Amino acid sequence: MLIVGLNGEHITVDRATLLIAATEHDSNLYYATRFIAPDPFIYLEIKGKRLMIMSDLEVDRARSQATVDQVLSYSEIERRVRAQGVADPGPVEIVHAVLQERDVKRVLVPGNFPYAHAARLQQLGYQLETKKEPFYERRAVKTEEEVRYIEAAQRATEEAVAAAHAALRAAALRDGVLWLEGAPLTSERIKKLINVKLMERDCVAQHTIVAGGDQACDPHHEGNGPLPVDRSIIFDVFPRSGQTRYFADMARTVVRGKATPELKRLYQTVKDAQEEAIAQIRDGADGARIHQRICDRFDAAGYRTGLVNGRMQGYFHGTGHGVGLDIHEAPRISRTGSPLQEGHIVTVEPGLYYPGLGAVRIEDMVLVTRDGCRNLTNYPKTFELE
Amino acid sequence: MLIVGLNGEHITVDRATLLIAATEHDSNLYYATRFIAPDPFIYLEIKGKRLMIMSDLEVDRARSQATVDQVLSYSEIERRVRAQGVADPGPVEIVHAVLQERDVKRVLVPGNFPYAHAARLQQLGYQLETKKEPFYERRAVKTEEEVRYIEAAQRATEEAVAAAHAALRAAALRDGVLWLEGAPLTSERIKKLINVKLMERDCVAQHTIVAGGDQACDPHHEGNGPLPVDRSIIFDVFPRSGQTRYFADMARTVVRGKATPELKRLYQTVKDAQEEAIAQIRDGADGARIHQRICDRFDAAGYRTGLVNGRMQGYFHGTGHGVGLDIHEAPRISRTGSPLQEGHIVTVEPGLYYPGLGAVRIEDMVLVTRDGCRNLTNYPKTFELE
Repeated sequence: MLIVGLNGEHITVDRATLLIAATEHDSNLYYATRFIAPDPFIYLEIKGKRLMIMSDLEVDRARSQATVDQVLSYSEIERRVRAQGVADPGPVEIVHAVLQERDVKRVLVPGNFPYAHAARLQQLGYQLETKKEPFYERRAVKTEEEVRYIEAAQRATEEAVAAAHAALRAAALRDGVLWLEGAPLTSERIKKLINVKLMERDCVAQHTIVAGGDQACDPHHEGNGPLPVDRSIIFDVFPRSGQTRYFADMARTVVRGKATPELKRLYQTVKDAQEEAIAQIRDGADGARIHQRICDRFDAAGYRTGLVNGRMQGYFHGTGHGVGLDIHEAPRISRTGSPLQEGHIVTVEPGLYYPGLGAVRIEDMVLVTRDGCRNLTNYPKTFELE
Repeated sequence: MLIVGLNGEHITVDRATLLIAATEHDSNLYYATRFIAPDPFIYLEIKGKRLMIMSDLEVDRARSQATVDQVLSYSEIERRVRAQGVADPGPVEIVHAVLQERDVKRVLVPGNFPYAHAARLQQLGYQLETKKEPFYERRAVKTEEEVRYIEAAQRATEEAVAAAHAALRAAALRDGVLWLEGAPLTSERIKKLINVKLMERDCVAQHTIVAGGDQACDPHHEGNGPLPVDRSIIFDVFPRSGQTRYFADMARTVVRGKATPELKRLYQTVKDAQEEAIAQIRDGADGARIHQRICDRFDAAGYRTGLVNGRMQGYFHGTGHGVGLDIHEAPRISRTGSPLQEGHIVTVEPGLYYPGLGAVRIEDMVLVTRDGCRNLTNYPKTFELE
């Protein structure tokens, strides 16, 4: 009998695949089961069958919601194991009971499988094998449904950023900072506006970035305090849909007031680099090479990367990453990049960061196609908001 | 020299503690570093020093934000390792370089430490040891600051639930379901109202439960569709503060319309059981015993627990859990419960679930004190909303 697994591969029938995790934090397990539970549970692929072993609390819901072949009761197996004389069985003893019945001694686990469970399995005589991420290679190649989910989250993102930019446009410029409705317009106010708008669309945004001036020179600084006039402000918004659990991701950089010619040139350099990178994306393109071209281009334009006064400046992050059930997933467009493939969804987000001058990052999300890509982002790239 | 670790224990100087995780998903690492980063990073406790090893992207932010002794640059160590002839060093080779310099060969890792990293460390000759959760025992004992954080999240939770209950009170009863503003009042509308209210208070609510009638008989069913008249509706809301990252947790059960005497008795039974459990909580009390008393009490009142037509009914979840940086953390008030200790914050949330009759769960969050507890919840227990 030919048995085919989630990755489309032929299955070695004497080897089980095992995950023990909480789907809330483990997207491989969610991908395999489509079941959300706050606490860890056991998932097994054995001889072409996909099983979950669930507590009394979750077993009924799992039977009606999870996309697996069979849901076993943890407490029933636990009773059997106790009856065999195991005083205090843990999850690994439960797995052991199931594997013994099916005569399996080899187990494939993901790289992030908990070490304590792995050590116990080895004590019990199992031969463990592991596979680097992506554990499920199919996760990187999005189905039409997954593309729709990500696009829906992206539409909500664009609406929220549009509302934020409208607030910036409505702001007065006073003493070097933005003012709105009688108070300084802060990063905190704008982030809340964005996050609330997104929650109204069932999207959960965390760590939204609205960072101006030198704060933005640290790419992960979320921003705080009054937003500056005449300095660039980076918006980076990457919510997860509460319904589908897929992410979207977009960044824009804007200025209120007047940008200096140097800051305008910084913006234009990043924008041109992003366009060139997007133009190179297609099935088979090499992520590492696309990233390297951006680095070379910035260097050639005189934008150097390295430590200055003990602080990194220039271009010191990757150009892009896959987006799906995780905000950062395979593939990468970076130093350690991999070949792009039709159906990948990746960000393209070059940036330049110079304390004193300011920071620019522009990020779109694109779907890789056979001979190019489709940009899933539908939001203008306007630097000076008027 | 006496060296004392995060747990207040004396440190074995030839053993390092190692975590490699993303703080977004790993609360032990966040507890140790107070640093949020989306991607995994390396944290080490060596000979009384607490170190982080950070990418160029995060190193500056880590130096200014993280509560550790030293932040090392990943790329600098990587260059050294490459210069020694390692072609493609991964995180474990970086750790190896740091441990070698400090002459350490024993490493303590948490139970959820990634197996692939553990296997590589063992290949390199390290002796691995692991410690069950709670890895940092101090996490369960809340400081005054942590109590304030949890209470602040709880105040936001109460405001949001109050707004939801106001909407239920304002609803009309029509054809067996609630109506508001010309449309059926659904679980989805009420959940969104709650989640948006919480986001306005910088609290991120996910998997909020607003489940009525038989839906609520599955304790983790989040609820969907129009809310029923005359049936119990469970609200369970457990947001995380976006600022402090601490959770709160509360559940209430209400009915619009008229509850039958049987349903009222169900409610009163749960409410009385919860009060008895809260009265037993104090420093030194045994979580397993408190849970067992609730089970016995329900049994004695004729509320049986077990499978009926292949579905669990009665009381089939724990009575309580610790709340902090995780929504479910040590200690537990359950079958596997542990002794309570002054400074623990735990939920007390008995429930009864009978398809056909309905479901009731009532949950408060309390701070364990030397001779009792302080209830951190300030929200009425009203069954019939008028």
